[in-house]
Amino acid sequence: LKGLTVTHKHVNLINKAGGDQLSSNFRDKNPLAQVPVLELDDGRQLRESIAICRWFEEQQPEPNLFGADAWERAQIEQWNRHAELELLLPIAQMFRNTHAFWAGRIKQAPEYGEILRETVLSRFDWIEQELAQRPYLAGPRFTVADITALCAVDFGRISKLRIKPETQPNLAAWHARVSERPSAKA
Amino acid sequence: LKGLTVTHKHVNLINKAGGDQLSSNFRDKNPLAQVPVLELDDGRQLRESIAICRWFEEQQPEPNLFGADAWERAQIEQWNRHAELELLLPIAQMFRNTHAFWAGRIKQAPEYGEILRETVLSRFDWIEQELAQRPYLAGPRFTVADITALCAVDFGRISKLRIKPETQPNLAAWHARVSERPSAKA
Repeated sequence: LKGLTVTHKHVNLINKAGGDQLSSNFRDKNPLAQVPVLELDDGRQLRESIAICRWFEEQQPEPNLFGADAWERAQIEQWNRHAELELLLPIAQMFRNTHAFWAGRIKQAPEYGEILRETVLSRFDWIEQELAQRPYLAGPRFTVADITALCAVDFGRISKLRIKPETQPNLAAWHARVSERPSAKA
Repeated sequence: LKGLTVTHKHVNLINKAGGDQLSSNFRDKNPLAQVPVLELDDGRQLRESIAICRWFEEQQPEPNLFGADAWERAQIEQWNRHAELELLLPIAQMFRNTHAFWAGRIKQAPEYGEILRETVLSRFDWIEQELAQRPYLAGPRFTVADITALCAVDFGRISKLRIKPETQPNLAAWHARVSERPSAKA
């Protein structure tokens, strides 16, 4: 989307030893053993997806994704946090706590996963109402908040959380609108 | 800390009707029925604590809390997110899922709370190692990442999550250092 060139190094999260992210080499980059990590040409390292996105925004300001003035930046931050805290994190936690993939790998609490399912479904209904008022989450244009929300909704499919087009037509239309962007398909 | 004057309106989260945040008046400001909400003099409204903090930073840039250049901003964002995702959110979820206060108010998953307890205690050990290398979470000076981490650690007390000064001396020293600041006592 920004036209920046980044060399990707694949970190295999699942192998017989538990995953490449657990190696001492990777833990030197991130003691939390989490991806992604951005390495600059001069060796500096940066963790956390949104911190990396903010860095990219400053290196290549256009197209603007985080806001062009103080009020728009505050609004986009509000909506990006809503997308993360109300959608992406509960959806990720639901996956970890209920999916067979994680059985035996981590301690799961399926009971909590079911509580989260109700939460997320109610959030879909709330976002439906918001998207009845404007085409994108934070306002009239595509921003990082839409990227976060798209990642969340698509991630939810693995836990059978799906948009209901009959009762959530605005959410369904938004999902189609953001999914057909070239950067979403990349 | 910023010297900004904000009029506080108290929202009583617990009353016989379930809390003032559930009123239609408050839900007009935030459909999620969550505090805080910032109202500007011209009627505009902003939700989400960190969005409000960023707005304050732009209104009153000094003392700087979010970074003075692109790389520092990225580093502070990384550490503020670590403080939030690895400490504050699991501590808040542990409170909700295990504390007697919430019994009967929300659906709780105590089993998940105990999983989170182990996570948070391991994060305290990790932060201890980080704070052996520098006085503040994101580097040589106090930033918003320290504010988030201080809120998290103090919130943990209600769930009996405590710093162990014998094995976590750097974390204990950091906690004393940030707690004695006038803004922390305010």
